Amino acid sequence: MNQLTDIDRTLSAPRLPHGLDTPVVVVDLDRVDANIARMQAHLDERGVALRPHAKTHKSPFFAQLQLEAGAVGITVATLGEAQVMADAGIDDVFVAYPLWAVGDKAGRLQALAGRVRLAVGADSVEGVRQLGRAVAGSSARLEVMIEVDSGEGRTGTDAARAVEVARAVTEAGLTLRGVFTHGGHAYRGPDRVAGAAEDEGSTLGAVLRALLDAGFEVPVVSAGSTPTAVASAAAPITEERPGTYVFGDRQQANLGGSDPATLALAVAATVVSTAVPGRCVLDSGAKMLAKDKPDWLAGHGVVPQLPGAVIRSVYDHHAVVDLADDAPPPRVGDIVAVVPNHACPVVNLTDELLLTRAGEVVERLPVLARGRNG
Amino acid sequence: MNQLTDIDRTLSAPRLPHGLDTPVVVVDLDRVDANIARMQAHLDERGVALRPHAKTHKSPFFAQLQLEAGAVGITVATLGEAQVMADAGIDDVFVAYPLWAVGDKAGRLQALAGRVRLAVGADSVEGVRQLGRAVAGSSARLEVMIEVDSGEGRTGTDAARAVEVARAVTEAGLTLRGVFTHGGHAYRGPDRVAGAAEDEGSTLGAVLRALLDAGFEVPVVSAGSTPTAVASAAAPITEERPGTYVFGDRQQANLGGSDPATLALAVAATVVSTAVPGRCVLDSGAKMLAKDKPDWLAGHGVVPQLPGAVIRSVYDHHAVVDLADDAPPPRVGDIVAVVPNHACPVVNLTDELLLTRAGEVVERLPVLARGRNG
Repeated sequence: MNQLTDIDRTLSAPRLPHGLDTPVVVVDLDRVDANIARMQAHLDERGVALRPHAKTHKSPFFAQLQLEAGAVGITVATLGEAQVMADAGIDDVFVAYPLWAVGDKAGRLQALAGRVRLAVGADSVEGVRQLGRAVAGSSARLEVMIEVDSGEGRTGTDAARAVEVARAVTEAGLTLRGVFTHGGHAYRGPDRVAGAAEDEGSTLGAVLRALLDAGFEVPVVSAGSTPTAVASAAAPITEERPGTYVFGDRQQANLGGSDPATLALAVAATVVSTAVPGRCVLDSGAKMLAKDKPDWLAGHGVVPQLPGAVIRSVYDHHAVVDLADDAPPPRVGDIVAVVPNHACPVVNLTDELLLTRAGEVVERLPVLARGRNG
Repeated sequence: MNQLTDIDRTLSAPRLPHGLDTPVVVVDLDRVDANIARMQAHLDERGVALRPHAKTHKSPFFAQLQLEAGAVGITVATLGEAQVMADAGIDDVFVAYPLWAVGDKAGRLQALAGRVRLAVGADSVEGVRQLGRAVAGSSARLEVMIEVDSGEGRTGTDAARAVEVARAVTEAGLTLRGVFTHGGHAYRGPDRVAGAAEDEGSTLGAVLRALLDAGFEVPVVSAGSTPTAVASAAAPITEERPGTYVFGDRQQANLGGSDPATLALAVAATVVSTAVPGRCVLDSGAKMLAKDKPDWLAGHGVVPQLPGAVIRSVYDHHAVVDLADDAPPPRVGDIVAVVPNHACPVVNLTDELLLTRAGEVVERLPVLARGRNG
């Protein structure tokens, strides 16, 4: 891949305010509103609950917007993120991760389970037993979601072993809420999305039957990722956990998960060098844009103001852009908006987001759960 | 590349303290001391000044150790990093970056130039003129280092245009300190290091002659990167700016820039899943390890405790490890040390470093310049 895709050429970045001190992450709230409303309406129509993944925005501010629009609760990846959400008053949190709860983490888990409605993921009997030990002796009620692998090959058990894990949940004095999966193989390319969405449905169906046959109640059957949440219509899913849709990004637009016209997040960057012919350098390096780059996309983001340009490489503090042959070169000092490949790591790299409406700054929002990796 | 290199198999990670709440970045101070002393001795022997790049550690704490060992000053990539160093009492800072100094940044530059000895990079006449406007009317003395490209193709002008830039420095009422380059093409593979070091020397030699012929004084001729600082012996270099050597990492060890036995930084991670056969999953995903991966290395870091294992992919919060066929699989709950491919982005992702000696925690150090990208 060394060419932009047809969709890349249609991407629209938020309007940038004037006078920015770059590099800085800009978020257009009107577009966020549109993205939240669209996903909520889509899942309402399917009759499926929305429990958005907060690892994208890492901010109670956006979680509250999602809840006000109809989300049933919030998903997070770490206990640290869950604590930040709980501190802000969000009282229904699912940690979609196979936590190993020992030491400090066990104490944090117990305290959190005592103050919000909390579910955590598990894909092993040992993990469940450790969760049980972590909350033993407290009045905290901890629910467990069993993770199954629907083809990504990352985490998650299979239908047969899910029954063993469910038995361990009961034995440990915990509450089985249900099962979940993440069809992350959708990210292997636009031609993989529909199949991954089907895999989620069929895998969850198989594990659901196995658990029901074994006598368990399974109130929640949860799938998730932005592209499969858009693509899927499969029973027996009762809940979806997309995250990136709130902002959208280049990858999502190419996977059908985001509308290219309402991408809400961009990195504002200054052209700092045009010394090497045919190229320019932006001050948004890998410490702003991250290095997420699917094999099936060219370069490290898209610059709508520089048609045809490819960000050939990112260093810590430099983005090196190959300019299109026929395009007028930018000048040193020009400010451009970069649509990142993947929004989630970008938010995790910055201490604050510049919130805008109609190209005007309305707030500087601290990213409260930034760096909460454990 | 899907195999570890011979050097990968020799990497030694710092000893981990017991009872860690993972994921967390651990730094072994004894190894840091060794790395600082070794680079200082190497450059002392060459008769070259050391001005270490602080973008690796982003911490005045380590900058002070480098200065105490003999460094002449500090290099940074951004004005924000420079401000953090100045706030901690470091009074000689070079921003090795072609700053475009307008708006807030112009004010910050002027204020900083008024309180420390400050040099900044430039590779264009426009950039120099803007620097001049930024400090005009103040008594601040700003020095300029002209950047030249020695083969990386990123930033930096050539010998002929360097003379024009030097004239602009004088006309803008600024002070020319010298010239600098970054032979970053050394990072394209172990077979490129010696050539990149030679390119730095020959390019700097050419631009030095051009400037001297044009009547300029050029007190400082600066090259830099950890592997070329180790490999180079070339005149006319008077100063080197390596950064990563302070900790070392997997990439540096493979490039000859770091001793595989004294790598000082690791990410401590917990095995959270073994559900997928032949694999395990660590809780150190891309939000801890970053996604820096040279084409010539397999996977996203090395786990010395899991011989032959390859970190096949990193997601935001998961590292998926392919285990070697003949190795005993780890158990859920095991804690391992991951040697990252590239130390610099790892430090920029974490709010604090766990400093150790002999496997015991001695301090939790906040990364004061984390996220200071502008």
